[in-house]
Amino acid sequence: MGRFGILTSGGDCPGLNAVIRGTVLQGETLHDQEFVGYLRGYRGLVYGDVMSLDRGVVRGISSQGGTILGTSRFGPYTEPDGTPDNIKSHMRRLGVDGVIAIGGDGTMAAANRLYEDGIPVVGVPKTIDNDLEATDYTFGFNTAVEIATEAVDRLRTTGNSHKRCMVLEVMGRHAGWIAMFAGTAGGAHAILIPEHPESLEQICEWVRSVQDRGRSPMVVVAEGFTLPDMDEAHSHKGLDGFNRPRLGGIAEILAPLIEEKTGIETRATVLGHIQRGGVPSAWDRVLGTRFGQAVSNMVADGAWGQMVALRGMSVERVPFSEAVGHTKNVPLEQYLGARAIFG
Amino acid sequence: MGRFGILTSGGDCPGLNAVIRGTVLQGETLHDQEFVGYLRGYRGLVYGDVMSLDRGVVRGISSQGGTILGTSRFGPYTEPDGTPDNIKSHMRRLGVDGVIAIGGDGTMAAANRLYEDGIPVVGVPKTIDNDLEATDYTFGFNTAVEIATEAVDRLRTTGNSHKRCMVLEVMGRHAGWIAMFAGTAGGAHAILIPEHPESLEQICEWVRSVQDRGRSPMVVVAEGFTLPDMDEAHSHKGLDGFNRPRLGGIAEILAPLIEEKTGIETRATVLGHIQRGGVPSAWDRVLGTRFGQAVSNMVADGAWGQMVALRGMSVERVPFSEAVGHTKNVPLEQYLGARAIFG
Amino acid sequence: MGRFGILTSGGDCPGLNAVIRGTVLQGETLHDQEFVGYLRGYRGLVYGDVMSLDRGVVRGISSQGGTILGTSRFGPYTEPDGTPDNIKSHMRRLGVDGVIAIGGDGTMAAANRLYEDGIPVVGVPKTIDNDLEATDYTFGFNTAVEIATEAVDRLRTTGNSHKRCMVLEVMGRHAGWIAMFAGTAGGAHAILIPEHPESLEQICEWVRSVQDRGRSPMVVVAEGFTLPDMDEAHSHKGLDGFNRPRLGGIAEILAPLIEEKTGIETRATVLGHIQRGGVPSAWDRVLGTRFGQAVSNMVADGAWGQMVALRGMSVERVPFSEAVGHTKNVPLEQYLGARAIFG
Amino acid sequence: MGRFGILTSGGDCPGLNAVIRGTVLQGETLHDQEFVGYLRGYRGLVYGDVMSLDRGVVRGISSQGGTILGTSRFGPYTEPDGTPDNIKSHMRRLGVDGVIAIGGDGTMAAANRLYEDGIPVVGVPKTIDNDLEATDYTFGFNTAVEIATEAVDRLRTTGNSHKRCMVLEVMGRHAGWIAMFAGTAGGAHAILIPEHPESLEQICEWVRSVQDRGRSPMVVVAEGFTLPDMDEAHSHKGLDGFNRPRLGGIAEILAPLIEEKTGIETRATVLGHIQRGGVPSAWDRVLGTRFGQAVSNMVADGAWGQMVALRGMSVERVPFSEAVGHTKNVPLEQYLGARAIFG
Repeated sequence: MGRFGILTSGGDCPGLNAVIRGTVLQGETLHDQEFVGYLRGYRGLVYGDVMSLDRGVVRGISSQGGTILGTSRFGPYTEPDGTPDNIKSHMRRLGVDGVIAIGGDGTMAAANRLYEDGIPVVGVPKTIDNDLEATDYTFGFNTAVEIATEAVDRLRTTGNSHKRCMVLEVMGRHAGWIAMFAGTAGGAHAILIPEHPESLEQICEWVRSVQDRGRSPMVVVAEGFTLPDMDEAHSHKGLDGFNRPRLGGIAEILAPLIEEKTGIETRATVLGHIQRGGVPSAWDRVLGTRFGQAVSNMVADGAWGQMVALRGMSVERVPFSEAVGHTKNVPLEQYLGARAIFG
Repeated sequence: MGRFGILTSGGDCPGLNAVIRGTVLQGETLHDQEFVGYLRGYRGLVYGDVMSLDRGVVRGISSQGGTILGTSRFGPYTEPDGTPDNIKSHMRRLGVDGVIAIGGDGTMAAANRLYEDGIPVVGVPKTIDNDLEATDYTFGFNTAVEIATEAVDRLRTTGNSHKRCMVLEVMGRHAGWIAMFAGTAGGAHAILIPEHPESLEQICEWVRSVQDRGRSPMVVVAEGFTLPDMDEAHSHKGLDGFNRPRLGGIAEILAPLIEEKTGIETRATVLGHIQRGGVPSAWDRVLGTRFGQAVSNMVADGAWGQMVALRGMSVERVPFSEAVGHTKNVPLEQYLGARAIFG
Repeated sequence: MGRFGILTSGGDCPGLNAVIRGTVLQGETLHDQEFVGYLRGYRGLVYGDVMSLDRGVVRGISSQGGTILGTSRFGPYTEPDGTPDNIKSHMRRLGVDGVIAIGGDGTMAAANRLYEDGIPVVGVPKTIDNDLEATDYTFGFNTAVEIATEAVDRLRTTGNSHKRCMVLEVMGRHAGWIAMFAGTAGGAHAILIPEHPESLEQICEWVRSVQDRGRSPMVVVAEGFTLPDMDEAHSHKGLDGFNRPRLGGIAEILAPLIEEKTGIETRATVLGHIQRGGVPSAWDRVLGTRFGQAVSNMVADGAWGQMVALRGMSVERVPFSEAVGHTKNVPLEQYLGARAIFG
Repeated sequence: MGRFGILTSGGDCPGLNAVIRGTVLQGETLHDQEFVGYLRGYRGLVYGDVMSLDRGVVRGISSQGGTILGTSRFGPYTEPDGTPDNIKSHMRRLGVDGVIAIGGDGTMAAANRLYEDGIPVVGVPKTIDNDLEATDYTFGFNTAVEIATEAVDRLRTTGNSHKRCMVLEVMGRHAGWIAMFAGTAGGAHAILIPEHPESLEQICEWVRSVQDRGRSPMVVVAEGFTLPDMDEAHSHKGLDGFNRPRLGGIAEILAPLIEEKTGIETRATVLGHIQRGGVPSAWDRVLGTRFGQAVSNMVADGAWGQMVALRGMSVERVPFSEAVGHTKNVPLEQYLGARAIFG
């Protein structure tokens, strides 16, 4: 019973459409719920901008990347119109009884504030970096790891043929989960993540020792990794004589430094946006679908102010107040475990 | 410290080589362990048939399907030579201090008996069907689900173009996890699993209702599913006048029955062995690697008589006595949850 | 200038939607043409059953398998309504000035007869088997080969792990192009095609010699291959005591025969429909797009009674009368070339 | 009869190992030839540095990227040791009767000079860019196009979700074949290639018109494309106040320019090395195998001073003197054809 608005906010992520589809099918079939889709994240909520959303609309979308609702980095309180009264007034006009917000930590924080301001909201966590403490996994992460691992596999054959060191930069601004998984899966000789500094000397030592064993070094680095001596690195004067501002990412800083210190020809690849788009993996579609079904059940129970989360094999509910603001880092022990078998 | 023999037993599975590599790298690097590989499962153990296994041998194998050790369905106690004394004598001859057995429920049961007969054994669970109660997931399952889901995606476009019903048979002898995941990911209109009988009438009703909404029905069935009236089905007399023995699988039984009862042209595909071979998914390589590292730690701790298991995000230890013989079925509730949104 | 009806007929094939999109975009942009889509092949033509077809409708479809128009094996002359007068009358009613028929040899033969009966028709050849003499390649073939090759790669690891012979059946009713390409790409130890008989003895000799060199035999067989002694094979009495009618395909006949004669455990996989659906390869999308653009140009030129064809790197025009009925077999020389390096 | 040395020179390319395997299998089976592998391109030839190369060594390599022989950009005449006499002396010492050089235009030019200096050499053309006039296609190109097209597919969903313009840079230094194929397959709204200048104004007009129709612009650009006003672009002062030297490629120059002129948020992705490594497509393995078989036949015929080439469906022989130095550009007509249906 009731009519609910779904929105997707923040960076896009494989599995968003599976969540939308799972919510709508579960709601229509089991709970007699109706849905509208807010366009472009919180912007749609604030301006009352919606599209219709029913079984027909969500047909076949779970195998598509991105989000059919569009998304933005717009926060609900950042513009003059973004007041609880305005939002409620648009909800009344549209006959919307509650909001389902799908997004990252910032989205959930905003959802919590909306909830405290009297707006019925539930959440579905989303972060391609998998760095939310409250849930074992988020959808999108698995797809990103598969894409990054395929890149490691591909780069390795080029590295071996040319006796080069290859440096691959993957996503992971604050936590290095994608680098950890793709590096482990691809048998990287060094994995560099934001949580655990490694010196340029240590990195070069790994690279040299791999080379000495007759192999071609493969380094996987998360975009958020920084060298302890990074300021120096930022202004590193390249062979071309230019001062080199940080443009393309940490891989493009690391590669010339490694080459300079080891004498081994080194090439950087920044994987970038191709990690977040396209056909989601089966795992992410299943997780998204289950999250969508669970959030429809939450709405049916009136369990506002909470979000869904994966714990072991089951989908559970967690209050926003507990979930928000807790980043899940790669534990030191797990990093050292992976590090033990580098190369 | 010490020298250990690794064996892989039962059906092959993507991720086996990642376990072998993870064990050897962890053992050599952290625990000063040495390894040999028993050839073709318990056969190698019984006949003392081994290959050398060190860092050089396991280089780059985690991205390869199958097992470099070979495998068989041979049990250690089934032949005259398969006595604990013979096995111990071969172990002494080869200087092997303990055994790491990688395999399914039968392999673990045999490992337990060997352990009770005084042979130091630890285990790594393996089942592509994911039907072991003791662990959330086993490696290989994820790869199989991705392959099966791609098949659903492919069959769907043919079904839609020809207005046909497509029936896809996937693995799952006793438990329907692959069908559940691939069917959910692919948006199947019916998922049929061994644990939960559905009548032919119910299946045909789903198929018809999908057709009535202008879509082309997609049925995903686990190989172990049986119709309540299966005996009749087995001897079903086809349009070609032949009595039809069960050759190709349940999909080839179901398809003509559905076509006959609904009048909708129906085609069967039996996915078969392509689900278990080839490049493992990143997820399975990571899980295999972590299992391998953990089992090397168990050996270092002398924790014989136990196997590794995934619980939530951590790898734990479970005694054989607790783990063996407990199948993990798809819970009824979860099946009904997926069933609620069929089509 | 003018308004044209597009139809897709016969089995579906990856790249059909690329042809449709290429035709519509080229026609609207360069030639001021309008289009309608006939539904379900010639059925739509005979009954005047159409959907609208413009730039908006074809947006993004080239990466989708199947055909948005639907297809059927219906011939234009097979039913009472299927007369040139009826067809012309529907065309007048719908304002359709000419027909673009996309299909196989049968579709082109029917197109030629329609053309001789005074209906303006042009054609785009389609056969996933690549067995049309008039064109170097047809779209869909490349996708099928990639899927079949991935299956060979996957089966190989299972074969090696279990020391089994694996038999993979791929499409190819009259010509063995898919088997030739996938077998060559996958390094098969035997490739069996309809054009060139091989005796069971020869096949078993290849299998044995591979086994003798310590490898696991991989046999790729086209569905249209028959043993010289096939009638006997058809009624082969299996180990289960049943007479074995031909149900699942030639692979399921061959596998037990090979196992019986060589004593090597042998498994069959019938790839079936997954070869023809799903996301088309880039090559097939490009070829489909180029065919579509070229057929729009043909219509603009009033070049009725002809079809497009790939010759080297260029797309050319061939009269139906020359193109129809000429199958392109794998040349004996090319087969012997592949055969020389088996295993 | 005889013993021949194979070398791979220049950038690595999917399909190199298929050529090596095809040559060795054909030679051993049909012509009683023996082979050695020169290590790291012409370096191995000049210094007489070889590995053994027989049926056992080439087993299963055609599905691997890179080259088992290693490669380099070393030319045979660039160092003091690189004299015909030295090379011949090493050949005599190793019992090598002739050389099979696999490489790009530079490699073939060097091969021609060696041939003129009295060394028996034959060639196999290799360029991932597909820009050799003498052959319809080179191996590696097809794999690169498939990888680039998958990237277009992935970027599109992100572009649509965020209403962004996405710019993808693919390989193609002198000729834009990869951009043409991947852009056509992926339905790009603009394709930019080295052969045909387009102004920034024209590009922005395409981008804007796509946006105006409610879609998200996708631009595919070959690395060798330059803006007519490129010098200005090179020193473009970014929002960060730095002068921006050309680091990451043309996509990273174009994206901020497009964003500045259109006001549409624009993101660049440089695909880079992942286009050239990893598992080759079936097509490239088949083409590589056929080239390898053909070059073994050439050697058997003593047809020195020539290279193999694909013409239509057959593999032919072309004298170095005719083949070298003729780049195959994308013909203007074909580019305009693709351009006609942008968006």
